[in-house]
Amino acid sequence: MSMRNVLLTIAYDGTNFSGWQRQPDRRTVQGEIERVLSQLCGQTITVNGTSRTDAGVHALDQHASFCADFGIPVERIPLAANHLLLAGCHRPGTVSDVQILQAREVGAEFHARFSSRGKRYLYRIRNAAQPDLFLRNACYQIEPPLDEAAMNKAAGHIVGTHDFRCFMAAGSQVGEDTVRTVYELCVERSGDWLTLSIAGDGFLYNMVRIITGTLIEVGLGRREPGSVACAIEGKQRALSGHTAPPQGLYLAKVFYDEAELAAFRE
Amino acid sequence: MSMRNVLLTIAYDGTNFSGWQRQPDRRTVQGEIERVLSQLCGQTITVNGTSRTDAGVHALDQHASFCADFGIPVERIPLAANHLLLAGCHRPGTVSDVQILQAREVGAEFHARFSSRGKRYLYRIRNAAQPDLFLRNACYQIEPPLDEAAMNKAAGHIVGTHDFRCFMAAGSQVGEDTVRTVYELCVERSGDWLTLSIAGDGFLYNMVRIITGTLIEVGLGRREPGSVACAIEGKQRALSGHTAPPQGLYLAKVFYDEAELAAFRE
Repeated sequence: MSMRNVLLTIAYDGTNFSGWQRQPDRRTVQGEIERVLSQLCGQTITVNGTSRTDAGVHALDQHASFCADFGIPVERIPLAANHLLLAGCHRPGTVSDVQILQAREVGAEFHARFSSRGKRYLYRIRNAAQPDLFLRNACYQIEPPLDEAAMNKAAGHIVGTHDFRCFMAAGSQVGEDTVRTVYELCVERSGDWLTLSIAGDGFLYNMVRIITGTLIEVGLGRREPGSVACAIEGKQRALSGHTAPPQGLYLAKVFYDEAELAAFRE
Repeated sequence: MSMRNVLLTIAYDGTNFSGWQRQPDRRTVQGEIERVLSQLCGQTITVNGTSRTDAGVHALDQHASFCADFGIPVERIPLAANHLLLAGCHRPGTVSDVQILQAREVGAEFHARFSSRGKRYLYRIRNAAQPDLFLRNACYQIEPPLDEAAMNKAAGHIVGTHDFRCFMAAGSQVGEDTVRTVYELCVERSGDWLTLSIAGDGFLYNMVRIITGTLIEVGLGRREPGSVACAIEGKQRALSGHTAPPQGLYLAKVFYDEAELAAFRE
């Protein structure tokens, strides 16, 4: 046996978690994952997650890596871990609110966060008079009709490489490099549902939720699409819109170099 | 002012409730509704629900009636009550897990339960390898493919007026009249989702969940469709299948006499 570096793909419903990051006396995704991996590996395991999602935020494709010398075959980790994650739930035919979808061995130099080349987030909005009772913690409920054409017009000002300081939560670290590249940003409607999709090389704290809140204000006609260009230019948080609530946000994809991922040891 | 008899239409996600019926020190749907109505009416309100759903069971169209002498206009009850039901939740753009959809004044002799002529329940099954993380408490997750044609064949033996003792939870009241009429029972597939729909004049304790469990065993090929007729004939709980878990079950419709409902006082 020897040290192995393992990359996990993880999905979760963030509703009942105090976010990703481990905290004493709080139920967090990292805390749950580390608890069951430590059981499986017979030693204390610490994982590095790609994105430290906030309380209430979901993930369809979170990644986390850990390095350890352990006995269980890597491919058996998802089933065994999901079984331990479900323990304590006594209803058959249901699953835990966090699921390990895949585990694979990667090269020693691979790191779930530092090796990432970018991410895609989705933000789901229910745009109807009647809320969806069963998805109420998985979307932002907005009754007045949203004009998605206007929202997409505003989105056009955001795509590209900019100083995105105006979309960073007030009180964030001063002196941080606030230049990022947004590769793609679009809003699509399917009946009563709007999905905002944004891909970029990195995101400032609360950036996706502030962009979403700003585009929603455009969609409601409370703000001109062009005002988004002015906000970016002005570099002031006060020039952008409200922070959309966490429950509509999903970490949807983490981008890695194919070459780096292909450097498996097996 | 004088006594008014009010009929409420209510929807809820049963996940975080210990069922409908009021219980000391437990969060129940009846308890929550009575708490906010008592606040609104300035007096202790007791409601009569149509169906005493179990813990984890949902409702799209539950009904409850109450009789009281109070000031607030009946049509304002839903908005005001839903506002009070949400109190304590600090996330904008979401709703409470119980919603009053409608309130209307009905004749003094009307009673949500005793005036009901029957009910429809739905049971939702996710039939796919991958569970739906966000609807995990709103369905029964079953991986092996279900044969819905076989399930519908078995369902044909259940429709009609029968002694349904074999579909009643063991330990239920002895001596109860166990003859009921099932008007309609069918299973429909839409991609990875199966919906069982059953309408009848009344249901024994756990009857819908035991019928569902039995039809699932037929759908898995573990039981012949004709065995359902034998179970009804044999009148033994042991002859039918397992009790499907609560989280797939929805009270979907309560039937009332149109004439009785039309007897509004306004």
